[in-house]
Amino acid sequence: MMSKSYVIGLMSGTSADGVDAALVEIEMSDGFPLLRLKTFQILPFSKKLKQMILRASSHEALAVDEICKLNFQLGEEFARAVIHLTQAAHIPLKMIDIIGSHGQTIKHLPPKSLKPIGFGSTLQIGEPSIIAERTGITTVADFRPRDMAAGGQGAPLAPYLHYHLFRSLNYGVAVQNIGGISNMTYIPPGAKIRDVIAFDTGPGNMLIDAVVTKLTHQKLDYDKEGKLASRGKVQTKLLNSLLKHPYFKKKPPKSTGREEFGTFLADKVIQKAKGLKKEDIIATVTAFTAYSIAESYQQIILPKFKLKEIVIGGGGARNKTLFSMIQRLLPSVQLKRFEDFHLNSNAIEAMAFALMAYETLHGKASNIPKVTGASHPVLLGKIIPGNNFKSLTACPK
Amino acid sequence: MMSKSYVIGLMSGTSADGVDAALVEIEMSDGFPLLRLKTFQILPFSKKLKQMILRASSHEALAVDEICKLNFQLGEEFARAVIHLTQAAHIPLKMIDIIGSHGQTIKHLPPKSLKPIGFGSTLQIGEPSIIAERTGITTVADFRPRDMAAGGQGAPLAPYLHYHLFRSLNYGVAVQNIGGISNMTYIPPGAKIRDVIAFDTGPGNMLIDAVVTKLTHQKLDYDKEGKLASRGKVQTKLLNSLLKHPYFKKKPPKSTGREEFGTFLADKVIQKAKGLKKEDIIATVTAFTAYSIAESYQQIILPKFKLKEIVIGGGGARNKTLFSMIQRLLPSVQLKRFEDFHLNSNAIEAMAFALMAYETLHGKASNIPKVTGASHPVLLGKIIPGNNFKSLTACPK
Repeated sequence: MMSKSYVIGLMSGTSADGVDAALVEIEMSDGFPLLRLKTFQILPFSKKLKQMILRASSHEALAVDEICKLNFQLGEEFARAVIHLTQAAHIPLKMIDIIGSHGQTIKHLPPKSLKPIGFGSTLQIGEPSIIAERTGITTVADFRPRDMAAGGQGAPLAPYLHYHLFRSLNYGVAVQNIGGISNMTYIPPGAKIRDVIAFDTGPGNMLIDAVVTKLTHQKLDYDKEGKLASRGKVQTKLLNSLLKHPYFKKKPPKSTGREEFGTFLADKVIQKAKGLKKEDIIATVTAFTAYSIAESYQQIILPKFKLKEIVIGGGGARNKTLFSMIQRLLPSVQLKRFEDFHLNSNAIEAMAFALMAYETLHGKASNIPKVTGASHPVLLGKIIPGNNFKSLTACPK
Repeated sequence: MMSKSYVIGLMSGTSADGVDAALVEIEMSDGFPLLRLKTFQILPFSKKLKQMILRASSHEALAVDEICKLNFQLGEEFARAVIHLTQAAHIPLKMIDIIGSHGQTIKHLPPKSLKPIGFGSTLQIGEPSIIAERTGITTVADFRPRDMAAGGQGAPLAPYLHYHLFRSLNYGVAVQNIGGISNMTYIPPGAKIRDVIAFDTGPGNMLIDAVVTKLTHQKLDYDKEGKLASRGKVQTKLLNSLLKHPYFKKKPPKSTGREEFGTFLADKVIQKAKGLKKEDIIATVTAFTAYSIAESYQQIILPKFKLKEIVIGGGGARNKTLFSMIQRLLPSVQLKRFEDFHLNSNAIEAMAFALMAYETLHGKASNIPKVTGASHPVLLGKIIPGNNFKSLTACPK
């Protein structure tokens, strides 16, 4: 295989908005992959397709025919995303070496305990045989099942990319992704991949969005740039009661979701906050989110490890009030954004699956057992041979 | 890769009785794979698991959670079948080079027309990441989607194995598999793989079984060795009316199923046969099955091609009355059984997926476009790397 490869990563999130497609150049340097993002695009799903995906992901019972067809239909969408991306990048399909496709999660049921092994399951769809057939490119897909087969949670997988993007010999770096839920990847100075720490810190935008939606009677569904929060005053009593949430006492590895920090908690907050100004309530849940992130560093990272900078990503990076609250709570650490490193924060997950596909074809494991709970490192994904399969595995003459 | 490989093929049929597991030795000889069946076993499913599979395969709506879990649970069963098989064969797991797993079909929706390409879909479960993880062996799985991505029906795939087992330079051979439905593979003398003809000839045991079940009020569910039929007299008028079925006028490639030759037709036959003796009715549907097979040869094969022998397989090979009826209708051809070639007729499908897995890892296509309707030959399946993945793709020093 050439020392420089063009790899496309594909991903669709649980909100089912469309296919994130990232074209990445990967070059080996001193035994480490160096990544450069060349082009990123989102191919939105039609309203109808989005509804079908959300229905298939719900608890609603449906005929297996629907899943069967949807898997193939989404395969076509992912293939289209590849073709559009190469057109936008002005690079012929033939020059692409590998595709890594996460697919669309429609169910993720991680094991409840680590023993006995193998009681979790997960279902990602978007038939990768279609992607390989339409593009002719060898495709690696479906990354989560192998980690779960090895007893892991099948998540988080992105810390593997964070490590390769931000590791440093001389100082500690963290990546704080603020999506619906917030998660942290911490990379100690001079770390090996097995030294990486990663876990969910707690709420991300989820609680702020839910409170804004309810308080504005759905006129707004998020606090753009944190402007509403910036006009309010944080209510200490409410904040302190929120910080008593039992999740913050748990030790990592830990993960959380919509059940703990979603609309249920938003309702409870609004009830408790009766009589307070809307802006004050929004400022308080924003502060709560900032505290829950900062506390994770204060309690788990800073007492034991060196940390120079935190790279903030996800939608929460655009909430200026939240960003500066976190910065104030962590004065010894420099807060940055993905964009400060010429990266597109939206492209990170798709880039992660490009890297994992590359590693699998090179016979390299890309789960982090301490992070996912797997019993050992494993090669992730399933390889669907494209026209270039023979040359990928062929021997140099 | 070594010139001799040990490959395990895994398959579970639509009746969901258990996992067929075949250990095959494959050796390259003059550019062709030579197969030797070493051991064959069936690992039966529990009653509960069988019911779950049949429910998931039905038209009943069910929660996606169930499919998600069942996929992983069946993966464990397929992995167990591998471990049991190697124990029975007294061969350590480490000596197995490749596993080929068909999985369990829970839905197969072939395209209704060949254009536009890609409107079919199929769903096989039995998570192969579990198989690769539990056994450490590189696993190739899920063979049908790629053929369908290329516009094919995703079936039949076994003719590829038939060709490699029975091809002859000097005479024509056919394989007639009599399962629920009957299908034929015809291999002309000195044929290349692209010369193979394969299609469903019509009913297999399906109609005989349904008639026996109804006439005996479910005391019997099939005609053991054809004994009931041997005691009856074929009723010519009834036979002739059955032979007018429009399926026999269609030209191959063609395929049929339960809708055309199942219980619906059995009910019709019994109604038409009112007043006739049970044995006569059974003899007549057995003759109908024999005629429908023999006519396929008389009309499609014999006018154009040479044919020396037909190898009969499937449950129908054990129906002596059916077997001798077909022989009488085709006096110029020698009828044989798989067992005459030291093969186990039950093992054929599992052997087919062992061979296809081997071919895919060697970069060789194993669909037959003229047979499946695909637009071109494709590498079938998805490769899940095992511990031996690097050595499989490694270059000789």
